[in-house]
Amino acid sequence: MSSIDALLERRYRVLGRNSPLFYERPLHLVRGEGVWLWDDAGRRYLDAYNNVPHVGHCHPHVVQAIAKQAATLNTHTRYLHEGIVAYAERLTATFDPSLSMLMLACTGSEANELALRIANVTSGGEGVICTNFAYHGNTRAVAQISTVFPPPEGFGPHIRAIPPPDSYRGLRGLSGTALEDAYVGEVRAAIESLAAQGIRLAAMLVCTLFSSEGLPHVPPGFMRRAVDLVRKAGGLYIADEVQGGFGRTGRHMWGHEQYGVVPDLVTLGKPMGNGHPISGVVGRADLIQEFGGKVMYFNTFGGNPVSCAAASAVLDVIQNEKLQENARVIGDYVVAGLERLAQRHSIIGEVRGKGMFFAADLVRDRATRAPAGAEAKRVINMMRDRGVLISRIGPHDNILKIRPPMPFTKEHADLLLATLDDVLGRL
Amino acid sequence: MSSIDALLERRYRVLGRNSPLFYERPLHLVRGEGVWLWDDAGRRYLDAYNNVPHVGHCHPHVVQAIAKQAATLNTHTRYLHEGIVAYAERLTATFDPSLSMLMLACTGSEANELALRIANVTSGGEGVICTNFAYHGNTRAVAQISTVFPPPEGFGPHIRAIPPPDSYRGLRGLSGTALEDAYVGEVRAAIESLAAQGIRLAAMLVCTLFSSEGLPHVPPGFMRRAVDLVRKAGGLYIADEVQGGFGRTGRHMWGHEQYGVVPDLVTLGKPMGNGHPISGVVGRADLIQEFGGKVMYFNTFGGNPVSCAAASAVLDVIQNEKLQENARVIGDYVVAGLERLAQRHSIIGEVRGKGMFFAADLVRDRATRAPAGAEAKRVINMMRDRGVLISRIGPHDNILKIRPPMPFTKEHADLLLATLDDVLGRL
Repeated sequence: MSSIDALLERRYRVLGRNSPLFYERPLHLVRGEGVWLWDDAGRRYLDAYNNVPHVGHCHPHVVQAIAKQAATLNTHTRYLHEGIVAYAERLTATFDPSLSMLMLACTGSEANELALRIANVTSGGEGVICTNFAYHGNTRAVAQISTVFPPPEGFGPHIRAIPPPDSYRGLRGLSGTALEDAYVGEVRAAIESLAAQGIRLAAMLVCTLFSSEGLPHVPPGFMRRAVDLVRKAGGLYIADEVQGGFGRTGRHMWGHEQYGVVPDLVTLGKPMGNGHPISGVVGRADLIQEFGGKVMYFNTFGGNPVSCAAASAVLDVIQNEKLQENARVIGDYVVAGLERLAQRHSIIGEVRGKGMFFAADLVRDRATRAPAGAEAKRVINMMRDRGVLISRIGPHDNILKIRPPMPFTKEHADLLLATLDDVLGRL
Repeated sequence: MSSIDALLERRYRVLGRNSPLFYERPLHLVRGEGVWLWDDAGRRYLDAYNNVPHVGHCHPHVVQAIAKQAATLNTHTRYLHEGIVAYAERLTATFDPSLSMLMLACTGSEANELALRIANVTSGGEGVICTNFAYHGNTRAVAQISTVFPPPEGFGPHIRAIPPPDSYRGLRGLSGTALEDAYVGEVRAAIESLAAQGIRLAAMLVCTLFSSEGLPHVPPGFMRRAVDLVRKAGGLYIADEVQGGFGRTGRHMWGHEQYGVVPDLVTLGKPMGNGHPISGVVGRADLIQEFGGKVMYFNTFGGNPVSCAAASAVLDVIQNEKLQENARVIGDYVVAGLERLAQRHSIIGEVRGKGMFFAADLVRDRATRAPAGAEAKRVINMMRDRGVLISRIGPHDNILKIRPPMPFTKEHADLLLATLDDVLGRL
């Protein structure tokens, strides 16, 4: 029995067989640094998948901040601490001035839970508009809008899932104003359908990249009209920045900025503490004050001094190493490289990119766009065997998901592209 | 403006005025070590309240484990890692053999969310029995059973809150078998009331210490009969060990052991990582496997290598420093001391203790047991001014809550008792 098989057997016994694992041959990792990971045999892998280690695996500045604060004090927000106040000031300063308050939690699920509760309590409504094939977290309320994994509990009557603004599949063939009109029409229909059942709208909650939906090309103007409708119906616009935030898009610090409409609440997660569990909701002061007056919300670990030190160090590194700028430059470079691959490999139906986040929609036939799910599975496993880590997404599991840590360079991009070229040539 | 006022003003601006703070004059803390905390003026406080720093503030063994693993690798459970498997094996070994599997998350709220979802999905039921004045977390589903803070959303028809087995107030005057009968009768009535509305029982979820309810003296036998009824109705018994676990009770590693009936699921939180955000559900393998087969549950930060290193170090310290034994010995010592104070101060209506967790029910009149809420508020603020940190709980906010870190010694206990004696004498 190999060391991996032995560990796997032990894992099955204590975590069960359903705890998800990547790849046909799971990876046993022991070390990380920058964009690199090492397995127990000493083999190195280029990480082109993980966005949690946003500023790079084990970044010394973040590690140092955690170690120092953990040795000094770790309490909670019912005592005063400079760290949380300074971090909140610094973080909110990166948003539109109307988004001036912060509530801290530990996971993206908790952030979306909290945002939905704020919307419910302040709007008096229950209805939520989300998109098909979205993922926002794993709590019971949030699982209702994580439509990529339909919950066995079923969907409540307050949920309306609409197609994402995807011109390649969901709203096929539409583009520009016609795509906008179609998406806005879906939002209007959802509001009307809720109203017809006597359900008041609480919020529309979307990932600003529609990333689990496949990172579609979206017309930036569509969001303003959709949000106008939502607000007229009494609902809030909640922007989920768990995937799109912290400079990932290259052009903006926050994914929602591309749409030119300021959200009412913004949820933050994965990259916030570079792997240390911290998440949050940034929002309008009036909403957070009203919610706080009605709900005694306290999160024991949320906003503790160590979490705030980690999160603050992440902002330092983004700034010091110009990682947003890097996401723009390298992002464009990778997209251009993927476009070149698409010229050589007809299996690539469409290339998509938003800063340091890429998708390649694999198809069996460019005319029918028949999704190549089995091929995508082979690709990610062959990539893994060749030392490059990526994954796949979308309703048909046929879209390559490439989302490296932010300090990804041209050299890393060249290795990614060359390996993918080789793998696609051998399919 | 003092430094505290200035920080408070800044905090109000970015966190809002409703983010809860302890004490009339909030504490600005800057350092912690063992059972001691220091404020920004260099003043030292005896921590007789916080159970999150279970093995002591900034314990060097835990800090070292976090620093070392954070510098080595921090990923998630979709890769294999020895740390999570070894921790899961070690943790489950402290439970009855039927509780052989572990799912990891980040907060107590997430653990209770997950346990409720497992109960819903595996039982096919929705009904939940909880107790009055309980606290189990802040998500929407868990807020439904956190009856101490009635949610503005209201309680759903699936919730049945029953009085805790409290002979001092809730089920006043009853004791022994009569108290058991009364509590079991409440459980039976709740099940029947759910059934009458066509709602199937999913679970009974209780804190094993009934700690937010006031840490009542409970007859240990009552739980077996209650759980028999719950199981006959198709529900699970979920033991919330966020407060009672990890040796806190002194006599047992887990609070539920005192009742002699093995739960179906156990939820863990606060003390698990000594302040590092980690939580979990330990449960029957069949339930966790069935749930995992139906729900794609993944928690990005849950069970990451750093969290597992922190949690494993906590188990080391509990063992190496014999902290469970210390909780028993010092726990008895503090209870005896509080009983002596009760002889001198008639405001103490009843003294309660479970290992290193104490409560003193303050009353204006021992005959009527009229709760002395305002006095309790004065006591905790006077204690704070004298350098000893405690809090208060219960439906009338009149019960002193004393729950120090586990390495609390006789000397610390003497300081706590002497300060409380002085404060009660000055009321």
